[in-house]
Amino acid sequence: MTTPDKTVTSENIFKKIISHAKEYGFVFPSSEIYDGLQAVYDYGQYGVELKNNLKTLWWKSMTQLNDNVVGIDAAIFMNPLTWKASGHVDGFNDPMIDNKDSKKRYRADNLIEDKADEYEQAGDVKKAKDLRAKMNQLLGANDLKGVYNLIVEENIKCPLSGTANWTDVRQFNLMFSTKVGSVAEEADTIYLRPETAQGIFVNFLNVQKTGRMKIPFGIAQIGKAFRNEIVAKQFIFRMREFEQMEMQFFIRPGEEMKWYEQWKETRFRWHQAIGLPAEKLKYHKHEKLAHYANAAVDIEFEFPFGFKEIEGIHSRTDFDLTEHQKLSKKKMQYFDNDLNENGKPYGNYVPYVVETSVGADRLFLATLCNAYTEETVGEGDQQKERIYLKLHPALAPIKAAIFPLVRKDGLAEKAQMIFNLLKYDFNVIYEDRDAIGKRYTRQDLIGTPFCIAVDYETMENDTVTIRYRDTMAQERVKIDELSQKIGNEVSFKRIFDKLS
Amino acid sequence: MTTPDKTVTSENIFKKIISHAKEYGFVFPSSEIYDGLQAVYDYGQYGVELKNNLKTLWWKSMTQLNDNVVGIDAAIFMNPLTWKASGHVDGFNDPMIDNKDSKKRYRADNLIEDKADEYEQAGDVKKAKDLRAKMNQLLGANDLKGVYNLIVEENIKCPLSGTANWTDVRQFNLMFSTKVGSVAEEADTIYLRPETAQGIFVNFLNVQKTGRMKIPFGIAQIGKAFRNEIVAKQFIFRMREFEQMEMQFFIRPGEEMKWYEQWKETRFRWHQAIGLPAEKLKYHKHEKLAHYANAAVDIEFEFPFGFKEIEGIHSRTDFDLTEHQKLSKKKMQYFDNDLNENGKPYGNYVPYVVETSVGADRLFLATLCNAYTEETVGEGDQQKERIYLKLHPALAPIKAAIFPLVRKDGLAEKAQMIFNLLKYDFNVIYEDRDAIGKRYTRQDLIGTPFCIAVDYETMENDTVTIRYRDTMAQERVKIDELSQKIGNEVSFKRIFDKLS
Repeated sequence: MTTPDKTVTSENIFKKIISHAKEYGFVFPSSEIYDGLQAVYDYGQYGVELKNNLKTLWWKSMTQLNDNVVGIDAAIFMNPLTWKASGHVDGFNDPMIDNKDSKKRYRADNLIEDKADEYEQAGDVKKAKDLRAKMNQLLGANDLKGVYNLIVEENIKCPLSGTANWTDVRQFNLMFSTKVGSVAEEADTIYLRPETAQGIFVNFLNVQKTGRMKIPFGIAQIGKAFRNEIVAKQFIFRMREFEQMEMQFFIRPGEEMKWYEQWKETRFRWHQAIGLPAEKLKYHKHEKLAHYANAAVDIEFEFPFGFKEIEGIHSRTDFDLTEHQKLSKKKMQYFDNDLNENGKPYGNYVPYVVETSVGADRLFLATLCNAYTEETVGEGDQQKERIYLKLHPALAPIKAAIFPLVRKDGLAEKAQMIFNLLKYDFNVIYEDRDAIGKRYTRQDLIGTPFCIAVDYETMENDTVTIRYRDTMAQERVKIDELSQKIGNEVSFKRIFDKLS
Repeated sequence: MTTPDKTVTSENIFKKIISHAKEYGFVFPSSEIYDGLQAVYDYGQYGVELKNNLKTLWWKSMTQLNDNVVGIDAAIFMNPLTWKASGHVDGFNDPMIDNKDSKKRYRADNLIEDKADEYEQAGDVKKAKDLRAKMNQLLGANDLKGVYNLIVEENIKCPLSGTANWTDVRQFNLMFSTKVGSVAEEADTIYLRPETAQGIFVNFLNVQKTGRMKIPFGIAQIGKAFRNEIVAKQFIFRMREFEQMEMQFFIRPGEEMKWYEQWKETRFRWHQAIGLPAEKLKYHKHEKLAHYANAAVDIEFEFPFGFKEIEGIHSRTDFDLTEHQKLSKKKMQYFDNDLNENGKPYGNYVPYVVETSVGADRLFLATLCNAYTEETVGEGDQQKERIYLKLHPALAPIKAAIFPLVRKDGLAEKAQMIFNLLKYDFNVIYEDRDAIGKRYTRQDLIGTPFCIAVDYETMENDTVTIRYRDTMAQERVKIDELSQKIGNEVSFKRIFDKLS
């Protein structure tokens, strides 16, 4: 007997999850009738509910539970000077190279990385390490000619054409641009924001003043961002259009490491509270820091394709506010009248910032991967495979499905009555098609935690059967008690309790 | 004594509302530190909560309360063939003209409209009517040369330069475009969606099949849309980036007028249920129908600048699905096995569609305008002006503010305890700065329905004072009863009850 190769199994599982997401209304390829649009996806009828639950939960955890954190919703379009100040116009680039025969475009660093992987797999770890070091040194110095030479020296070929007939290496800006026109002589170039963070920084003064916020305080935001990725892959993990859930926490200079450590822990606990198991989560500290950061860590989740970032916590110093202050000539400062160790007010300063930044789509994917469960149930001849989504009840798209055992003898009407009783509080559905076993299976596949069956006994004593998704156990419950019973299980409070 | 001119008063009120929105954290100009970006706005800390409440309320009203309506969240980026099929690539244009001296661009139809208004104000109603009719006839025939000639004949001058030195009239496509690039030889032009509706149509088959939806059924969606308006004005009423809340209801051909009438009424009642008074709402039936529609009506709200559309209900026939079917070669059909009058299944057909389409930002503005209240309170020397936002408690950004009368003697801690008790259920804030009168005023200005004061009596008998925003009445209540008392008032259920 052979042990299955873990990589192969994981790849298989991931393929199954992708097709499950499509088949059961969670994620569809964008405009699929026109064969889609690369690296763009739509959320289906159950996907949108799951995603909204994740977003609402994050929003409330950040703003409602923290008296000193408020939200905003800045537009995707911003004055283009924003991206000049942030460094995106000049520096938000990937090095790209085209193969002249296949006309295929690659990230130059990816081609070299692949070559290094080859060396590694062939056992030559040192050669791989040296190659990576050389590449990083060249990229760090923005020596594109050097990167090109390295590709040629290493005799790297296009996987498609098999040739080494390359163009030069060029920088490719990842921002999408468009023209906004109201004046004849010039249509202004504007950008689709590549991150939501800047929408918070440019509103720092507005929020601080109109909200009378006292440092330390945070501003949270959920919204779309766009990056023209040369290579986008792994389903919804890396998309050209994606959604971020970011919070910028404004603090006194010098106190950043304290807050960095605190948010690092708070956010790690949050992912556990929503149901991601501790063993599938880990920190990944950045060794190479971005130009604006003095400390940075990722929270990674173990996807079927390995541990990958779902959230970043970054100590961004005063980089962004200072750059905006320089370019806009507006004082991005705060007057702190709390007293310092010497009994004097801290006075005016540009605040430091600790950022927490979750990829909403990645969190969705992590939640889905974690929930996807295959198990064998029953014994002997009755043994069969069962698939279900083990979602936290507070996150499940549908909280309960109500089934009449049969449509006749008033059972359908009774079930409808229960549906109408519950629908004001919960997202519930009524279903009377197929045999009851099939109905259970279908609800398992979309992660509905409770199925409520109306049978002949219901007509006599106003009790129903609740069938639990995870255990498949059934229980007799009074109709009067349904609302409270479901409410307790699906409430965000159960998650909030784990956060305090 | 003279009666104030109604127009002047309304203009004043609108200016006050705009500055109120800015000053109290509801709406900020986008990237304001860089002098903004025309016709783009950001929602501040209270604005985002109000907008989210409106969006959640609409979402639940549509999907949760209706067993046959589900939601989706399609991407902003779509395969560009979508916009070919929908007619937007070829026909989503405004006629524009530039003044060569001022370099200012205008919508040609707006210039002519303004001229017609001039005639009207000068008492020449017939001349105004004739001019409008001529313009409509020329635009209907896409006779741009004729439109140009009309502008010249009417001697219309640029308000800026005062000259009639015009360019030709050209069509200006309102879609924003950008380039998505992964292949060397061609970067594909894609568009930012100018409406969310098409994201629903291209997903019709996916949702119908994976959700096992039976006609009649609806698909609802909330999301951003973008239009490169030549002239954008009236604050957040007409923006280049805006948010739609749309529902497409799929029905049998021939039944569209029944459903059109039904949704027309349902949606009108909804706006009343969320607090917009009947006398400020009216229907405006379209006389000139869009090419895809066989009936259309707007629900208009009386803004300070007049009755304007906040929602459209359109009978879109099978236009969109049929066009997508033609271009994509996918059968956009439904098999209906219900039996018709002849006892035979209805069989295969392309469904008809009735659409309900709300502008989320317009609804926000209507809600804000309606809530903005100036009143005189007190008598004699005590008389003063009071401003408050009379928002429905279910929509208010902050549900309750908790104040300790003073910070000492344990009152602050007690108030904090109440804050921590309530924060898991409601968006509440704690405030101990300023005198208590000022704190009430501030909460009035952001529309907080309940203020809870902790005083010395609280320390003795665990009761607090609730002060009601609208009446300013105060009431003594037990701390234990707070949660239920607030919960009853702010629950969406109070609105849902008015819908059934």
